Amino acid sequence: MAILKGAAIFGQSGGPTSVINSSASGVFQQALKEECITAVYGAAHGIRGILNEEFYDISKETQEQLDLLKNTPSSALGSVRYKLKNADVDDTDYKKLLEVFKKYNIRYFFYNGGNDSMDTCNKISKFMAKSGYECKVIGVPKTIDNDLSITDHCPGYGSAAKYVATTIMEVYHDANVYDTPMITIIEIMGRNAGWLTAASMLAAYKGAGPDLIYLPEVPFTLEKFLSDVKKVYNSKLDHKVIVAVSEGCKDAEGRYIAEMGQSLAKDAFGHAQLGGAASVLGDIVKNEFKCKVRSIEFSLMQRCAAHIGSKTDIEEAFLAGEEAVKAAVQGHTDYMIGFERTYVDGKYKAKTILVPLADAANTEKTVPLEWMNEEKNFLKQEFIDYALPLIQGDPGLPFEDGLPKFAKLKKVLVKK
Amino acid sequence: MAILKGAAIFGQSGGPTSVINSSASGVFQQALKEECITAVYGAAHGIRGILNEEFYDISKETQEQLDLLKNTPSSALGSVRYKLKNADVDDTDYKKLLEVFKKYNIRYFFYNGGNDSMDTCNKISKFMAKSGYECKVIGVPKTIDNDLSITDHCPGYGSAAKYVATTIMEVYHDANVYDTPMITIIEIMGRNAGWLTAASMLAAYKGAGPDLIYLPEVPFTLEKFLSDVKKVYNSKLDHKVIVAVSEGCKDAEGRYIAEMGQSLAKDAFGHAQLGGAASVLGDIVKNEFKCKVRSIEFSLMQRCAAHIGSKTDIEEAFLAGEEAVKAAVQGHTDYMIGFERTYVDGKYKAKTILVPLADAANTEKTVPLEWMNEEKNFLKQEFIDYALPLIQGDPGLPFEDGLPKFAKLKKVLVKK
Repeated sequence: MAILKGAAIFGQSGGPTSVINSSASGVFQQALKEECITAVYGAAHGIRGILNEEFYDISKETQEQLDLLKNTPSSALGSVRYKLKNADVDDTDYKKLLEVFKKYNIRYFFYNGGNDSMDTCNKISKFMAKSGYECKVIGVPKTIDNDLSITDHCPGYGSAAKYVATTIMEVYHDANVYDTPMITIIEIMGRNAGWLTAASMLAAYKGAGPDLIYLPEVPFTLEKFLSDVKKVYNSKLDHKVIVAVSEGCKDAEGRYIAEMGQSLAKDAFGHAQLGGAASVLGDIVKNEFKCKVRSIEFSLMQRCAAHIGSKTDIEEAFLAGEEAVKAAVQGHTDYMIGFERTYVDGKYKAKTILVPLADAANTEKTVPLEWMNEEKNFLKQEFIDYALPLIQGDPGLPFEDGLPKFAKLKKVLVKK
Repeated sequence: MAILKGAAIFGQSGGPTSVINSSASGVFQQALKEECITAVYGAAHGIRGILNEEFYDISKETQEQLDLLKNTPSSALGSVRYKLKNADVDDTDYKKLLEVFKKYNIRYFFYNGGNDSMDTCNKISKFMAKSGYECKVIGVPKTIDNDLSITDHCPGYGSAAKYVATTIMEVYHDANVYDTPMITIIEIMGRNAGWLTAASMLAAYKGAGPDLIYLPEVPFTLEKFLSDVKKVYNSKLDHKVIVAVSEGCKDAEGRYIAEMGQSLAKDAFGHAQLGGAASVLGDIVKNEFKCKVRSIEFSLMQRCAAHIGSKTDIEEAFLAGEEAVKAAVQGHTDYMIGFERTYVDGKYKAKTILVPLADAANTEKTVPLEWMNEEKNFLKQEFIDYALPLIQGDPGLPFEDGLPKFAKLKKVLVKK
């Protein structure tokens, strides 16, 4: 088999994570080493950068900056939410991509993202094949939601989970200083899969976590929620309750908590229930328990807190990037890099696998219900065993002036 | 001068910080070493624990736990917000305190807190003196607000400032991934003093911070705010604006931003403006700019994020505890430990000083207006020079299972 010679392009897509740039670093550093790769490009804002011929010449970046990328949160190249149409319906974008690929002799395409991005990869790959243009397409997974199928877990999840568990441990200490009743409601990201909210269980495992955990996998009702809170509230001498709730919790009809709040506002409350799940539930329990209530949203911090990243996650993200390039150069295409969990001498060790893009695209892996307790408001040991290995190790973030030193790429645009 | 022999008691008061326990560790470890100190007690929930004779025998704690305290956020003994009446008005509490002090032969009283707590110290000290009961009283400062007078800065501030600066740097990266307009509004604690909000300037100094900073020291108007945001919004190609705003911002009449929102709701908006400053301003700019808006509150995290604490702060907090005990044993009373800034070979080095309690109590030090730019929406180099030394150094937090290892005291209650 002749080795395919040509340029490589890498793009970042979807919501950022703490380690998406670590994968970029892995792709770039490996691609720059490969003889058959004649140029290494980074697409500005994912697929749109390719369509607009806006991409950076990565060979112009210094080794130091490529190394710093490993610990720099978010998407250094810029991200995009751009869903390609089906080529049968409208192939304008595909034709443009093909034109760009041909113009720059791009023969390797790496795309970093979640479900949607794997779908984008898959569609592009198919179109290129149909058009007779040889191009190796490999997806690099990332998502704090951890909801990609087949792979044991996704880069980005471990660091976000570590942030969630660590921060809840700290908030737990803060929430317990006064001996007065208090209910703390913490809202965590995840629209359909509760993996990240479940990570709050790791804080509980350390004795400093939530009493109740609500995942979007389980239909949410206010009645059950209030009765759960009441039970914990009454069982404790100091009436302290900490709740972790997913932003994605919804009732059997698919109504999100915020929507429940809006309709409740009409009958029971004098004011509109705005904001997210924590804010709405906070208002409701305040009304019910007449005690101090704190509603906390981890907001963007949970997906960008590189300073409390997981070394395991950072290294796996980097490895996924490296392996994507290696697989492509070996002639593989139409795959996403995934992880299989192995244990060597009882110690966790993930190895990479190739997952067909078609299998990874547009599917969602949720938290197994059997990992939850009977009441479906707490997690079991199975989840702890699953998640704990993923958050291990100091991120090794370099500091300067007491603050993180993040990469600042030159971003030299390739001439059109 | 005969050395006073007797028991020592230490209490924690007011809102917690990341390093209040570091001061506890300093007090305990030093007190346990002093021959004249016959017993070392930790008051449960501050002054209330003394009134109720609920305190822990610190000699029962292990060295390991006392060391872990240095990195454990919040108040391990429990805190309290309890303002003593003036003894002239009602001396019930004072009499009870005197009774307890006599019963346990408490001759050393150390109290950790902010303005109010220094006032408490001062009142107790005066009452004891008036009653002819010899007791050495030393205050140990703590507050993320950094608003105590005379001392150069307060333990607790450096760590909170480091959290704020680091987190804003990370949020900055996250907020810049898409090339669509976006306004991010970050709310930071501080009711009257803007020190902590000003710490966002350290992120700006590193090139990844807010464009606009609003402190409570400057009267806030929505008109000026909107015109500032518009200026930044229009000056940037990608229309990205990041704003840091203190929860304490108010207009010339003393109305907080949340209150402005409530009155605005009546005329301009269809729904009630609830929540804090960030949420209200977020609604207002969304209405004005019709772009994506993110409102972020750092909530409790900014005062308990021990994992991103400042080594300098942790060590100074510990030192303040140690020095409080040493000063008391040397016969000093009625002082708070403060810090004076010195530079040795150009390197920052704080030394402790004794500040009369009367001077520390009930006063507030605010950010000098001359450290702000002319527009009063940004900080100058003077602030950076002031704050940067305070956030230096890795906190050295021990980890176990990938998560922080915090102290778990035995808390053996002293028999009544």
